[in-house]
Amino acid sequence: MIRGIIPPIVTPLRSRDELDVEGLHRLIEHILAGGVHGIFILGTTGEAPSLSYRLRRELIERTCRQVAGRVPVLVGITDTAFVEAVHLAQFAAEAGAQALVLAPPYYFPNSQPELLEYVQHLAPELPLPLFLYNMPTHTKTIFDVETVRRAMEMPNIVGIKDSSANMIYFHQLVGLLPERPDWSLLMGPEELLAESVLLGGHGGVCGGANLQPRLYVELYEASVTYQLGRMRELHQQVMRTSSTLYRVGRHGSAFIKAIKCALHELDVCDDFMAEPFHRFREEERERVRKVLAELGLNIAA
Amino acid sequence: MIRGIIPPIVTPLRSRDELDVEGLHRLIEHILAGGVHGIFILGTTGEAPSLSYRLRRELIERTCRQVAGRVPVLVGITDTAFVEAVHLAQFAAEAGAQALVLAPPYYFPNSQPELLEYVQHLAPELPLPLFLYNMPTHTKTIFDVETVRRAMEMPNIVGIKDSSANMIYFHQLVGLLPERPDWSLLMGPEELLAESVLLGGHGGVCGGANLQPRLYVELYEASVTYQLGRMRELHQQVMRTSSTLYRVGRHGSAFIKAIKCALHELDVCDDFMAEPFHRFREEERERVRKVLAELGLNIAA
Amino acid sequence: MIRGIIPPIVTPLRSRDELDVEGLHRLIEHILAGGVHGIFILGTTGEAPSLSYRLRRELIERTCRQVAGRVPVLVGITDTAFVEAVHLAQFAAEAGAQALVLAPPYYFPNSQPELLEYVQHLAPELPLPLFLYNMPTHTKTIFDVETVRRAMEMPNIVGIKDSSANMIYFHQLVGLLPERPDWSLLMGPEELLAESVLLGGHGGVCGGANLQPRLYVELYEASVTYQLGRMRELHQQVMRTSSTLYRVGRHGSAFIKAIKCALHELDVCDDFMAEPFHRFREEERERVRKVLAELGLNIAA
Amino acid sequence: MIRGIIPPIVTPLRSRDELDVEGLHRLIEHILAGGVHGIFILGTTGEAPSLSYRLRRELIERTCRQVAGRVPVLVGITDTAFVEAVHLAQFAAEAGAQALVLAPPYYFPNSQPELLEYVQHLAPELPLPLFLYNMPTHTKTIFDVETVRRAMEMPNIVGIKDSSANMIYFHQLVGLLPERPDWSLLMGPEELLAESVLLGGHGGVCGGANLQPRLYVELYEASVTYQLGRMRELHQQVMRTSSTLYRVGRHGSAFIKAIKCALHELDVCDDFMAEPFHRFREEERERVRKVLAELGLNIAA
Repeated sequence: MIRGIIPPIVTPLRSRDELDVEGLHRLIEHILAGGVHGIFILGTTGEAPSLSYRLRRELIERTCRQVAGRVPVLVGITDTAFVEAVHLAQFAAEAGAQALVLAPPYYFPNSQPELLEYVQHLAPELPLPLFLYNMPTHTKTIFDVETVRRAMEMPNIVGIKDSSANMIYFHQLVGLLPERPDWSLLMGPEELLAESVLLGGHGGVCGGANLQPRLYVELYEASVTYQLGRMRELHQQVMRTSSTLYRVGRHGSAFIKAIKCALHELDVCDDFMAEPFHRFREEERERVRKVLAELGLNIAA
Repeated sequence: MIRGIIPPIVTPLRSRDELDVEGLHRLIEHILAGGVHGIFILGTTGEAPSLSYRLRRELIERTCRQVAGRVPVLVGITDTAFVEAVHLAQFAAEAGAQALVLAPPYYFPNSQPELLEYVQHLAPELPLPLFLYNMPTHTKTIFDVETVRRAMEMPNIVGIKDSSANMIYFHQLVGLLPERPDWSLLMGPEELLAESVLLGGHGGVCGGANLQPRLYVELYEASVTYQLGRMRELHQQVMRTSSTLYRVGRHGSAFIKAIKCALHELDVCDDFMAEPFHRFREEERERVRKVLAELGLNIAA
Repeated sequence: MIRGIIPPIVTPLRSRDELDVEGLHRLIEHILAGGVHGIFILGTTGEAPSLSYRLRRELIERTCRQVAGRVPVLVGITDTAFVEAVHLAQFAAEAGAQALVLAPPYYFPNSQPELLEYVQHLAPELPLPLFLYNMPTHTKTIFDVETVRRAMEMPNIVGIKDSSANMIYFHQLVGLLPERPDWSLLMGPEELLAESVLLGGHGGVCGGANLQPRLYVELYEASVTYQLGRMRELHQQVMRTSSTLYRVGRHGSAFIKAIKCALHELDVCDDFMAEPFHRFREEERERVRKVLAELGLNIAA
Repeated sequence: MIRGIIPPIVTPLRSRDELDVEGLHRLIEHILAGGVHGIFILGTTGEAPSLSYRLRRELIERTCRQVAGRVPVLVGITDTAFVEAVHLAQFAAEAGAQALVLAPPYYFPNSQPELLEYVQHLAPELPLPLFLYNMPTHTKTIFDVETVRRAMEMPNIVGIKDSSANMIYFHQLVGLLPERPDWSLLMGPEELLAESVLLGGHGGVCGGANLQPRLYVELYEASVTYQLGRMRELHQQVMRTSSTLYRVGRHGSAFIKAIKCALHELDVCDDFMAEPFHRFREEERERVRKVLAELGLNIAA
């Protein structure tokens, strides 16, 4: 059972199709030092769909080897091609990962019956427990509450990460939990971590935890133990980061760029981005530096 | 210079990850017999994103070998990963294809500067001329008119297939043509073929031409030679197919399922669908049969 | 039966809630001099929803009196409140209007059964023939093809103006015409006038005809008489206006602002806008002047 | 300063354009007996845009007279026409209302500069303090955080009701509160009341409080006093109502229909709906009765 903070790690790159191996090493140690409860690779924050399969496999292998069982490693296998998702899952299992994460196939818009059947066909082919991943802004398809309920009937589907940012929907998912006490219901957007945990969720897959892992671990702990004053204070820190750092840059991709840029400024890893994106240019880098200073994060990790 | 009808062929499958080799053979001959001006494989109608890379390569190889230069073969290389798109392009060139087709990377929403830069980075890596492919319902990103204008500055980008179904936008693209007399401006939705050709477009990538290749070739010819009466009559036949056959089935995927099902009923090829879709069930097959009879298409090809 | 060009006239205003009476007079004569086949007041281009009911009634009265039967006057009665739509319809009938125009009520999203029932309840309360008005970008609801087909069963519903800019949908509406030979199928966006008339439509409600009424009348006539060369030439003039004049200004409201600003520059009427909009500021006015000069429209009408 | 639960009351109707006067009387007393902190008329739940102006005025007058100062009465003045909004505001002030509520004009899509200017023009014309009302699903326009910040500079704008259901946005609004200690930040969707109050909001405009006013008052009090166990229990009651009662009916209008139908079953008021909607038919009424019994709400109030 997964509980707590599972950062969706960025993929440190040195250039096109080249992993920043030392950066990955530092990043993993930086995150683990924050006391996180797991690590999730090859998610949206990890730019997974933009990476070659070769690089994805290299990332899986290196991450699993370095984490070495200290926390569970979750591996994203989302793919438009069924067969490629299965291949990646097999590779992840052999490399020693603990679980898989799957968003809907994201080129064709899916209906709910098609999506349910897809999951029902795929799950039995997988060698590891599976988390669903709700990410409608990118996949165009949401897992309807009823589809999630049906997926809960399959024992090797063990949880869902909800990045819809729709709290009404999240509360409806909480309403399903009595049917599967071993289920993990995880929040995507870190701005909603506090309330989601307070009202029944089990933790968060917070992109910001690449940078400030301890902040999110502490916010999770304050929420799960009902320390309200502490929770509000930490939630406000999260909102401050969100309202400043993630607002540098103009495009939808700004969040990942800002996290990577900040990690670079803190000497953790390179901030090269896989195409179709590119790292922040100097003007935005300067703003990131300023924001980091304001947030008191300007000392290299 | 590509002009005329270039059917986006379906990918005949026998089962998961298994090409229907005989069906593909019959399908290609059926389409070529209709007098088409090219063949486009690995597009949306071809379910490309749902196919394994292995199967994509097999399809490229078999198609190029069988077409054997009778018409140009265009190969879709759309991918979320830059490197995989380049790999597929290289494979297509070696297999003897004539051109490549590229929609925007479709997981992350792209801004126009990012999209332009992506195309500017990718085109020089490609061994064949490139067509852009506008498909905003599936990729979430449109090629803005200004982005197309900038792409026209690159000599190895030679055309665009517009499946936006937005005729105002299409007319704006027509307005760019004086800058590149060698450019090909192709219409996606077959319901808009007649008017697009009449007002300056160069042809169509009509899914329905899998089934009735000659109908679309004749409609193109009537439009390009200003035979208005004939054009209206053929356009109405297209609308009748669209309003009946493509309306069988409830989901967004109905169009491809209906085309494949009809081809199966006409003994051209199998109608197995790659996940997340599945072929029509009996109730819908029965309706397809009825529609084919009404359209006078019920005699096996 | 309405056929031809029916400009949706702008509402000349002198200040908040004050009609520009002389401007309205000049505008109507300017438009009628172009040979148009009708006049449509209180549409989207007329900013109807932004006008007080008092001003709407004043506009109806003055327009009907001045047009004095030279062409039919169509009056928009679209309203979120059923009862207010009926009141305005009664006023229009008494003032001498010839027909009414109705888009779906636009605050609540409507389902198709609700929308059909709404039309079925409203039409019998109306003293004049009714045109439906499809404008999904503003009303959020489209009249589905099947809903239009059902509305065609009511004899006092006599046509539809389609501003969806969706030509596939428009062709489907053309497919309904055999059921009602007296029906009028009118195109909204002027960029699509040529092809819509060529393929079965009956005319256009072209905003640009406020400015250049004769251009649209001639384009309609070239299309309906199959003078293809002339049609293409005039269509290109329309596209040039669309790609320049309507691109001045950044917001969704730019089209109306540009038309009003141009009319002001040509000394036809004031360009005050009803809130929430305001007329172009000097920078944009300067660009309008430049565009008018390039289009050869800079001589006061 | 408004704090607590301010139900957006339904408008009891006996038939088209006819208020259910006795029903309105009973409804107001039913709601006040629940200990609410205000009453909001002519909002979305009140079907305001579907009501004639005559009926809106009658409703204002009767409500103000009956409430008679026991709690503040807030009156919705949202309108597409600036002048009509001002007229209604003046009427409300004369009738004894305490505040006004304004969503963006909802026919034309507004840009943020246009929307801000609209509010800046309108607020000075109003005789009462103004609440903004964020309702993007119906108005198409959101009040951006920066627009709200600018509106907070106007002293007679005193709060905002946020019905966006976007908690990240809501937290950003909480971040603005230090600038205006007298501001009221109210949550629309009742499913989000608990967390919004816990993290800095001031109360809720809960549609469900038409039916169960005390439930929402108690939930507000539990949240504002940090009684977490009680809060979770009441929040789950809210979710149960939301997941059952509001799911009867298929269309977007189902929420209002369900509330009205339930009030009718409890002998509070008639459930006639203003066009374009109609009350639930027998099948759905039966389901409402069953749900009310399951929720223990089947005893007439």
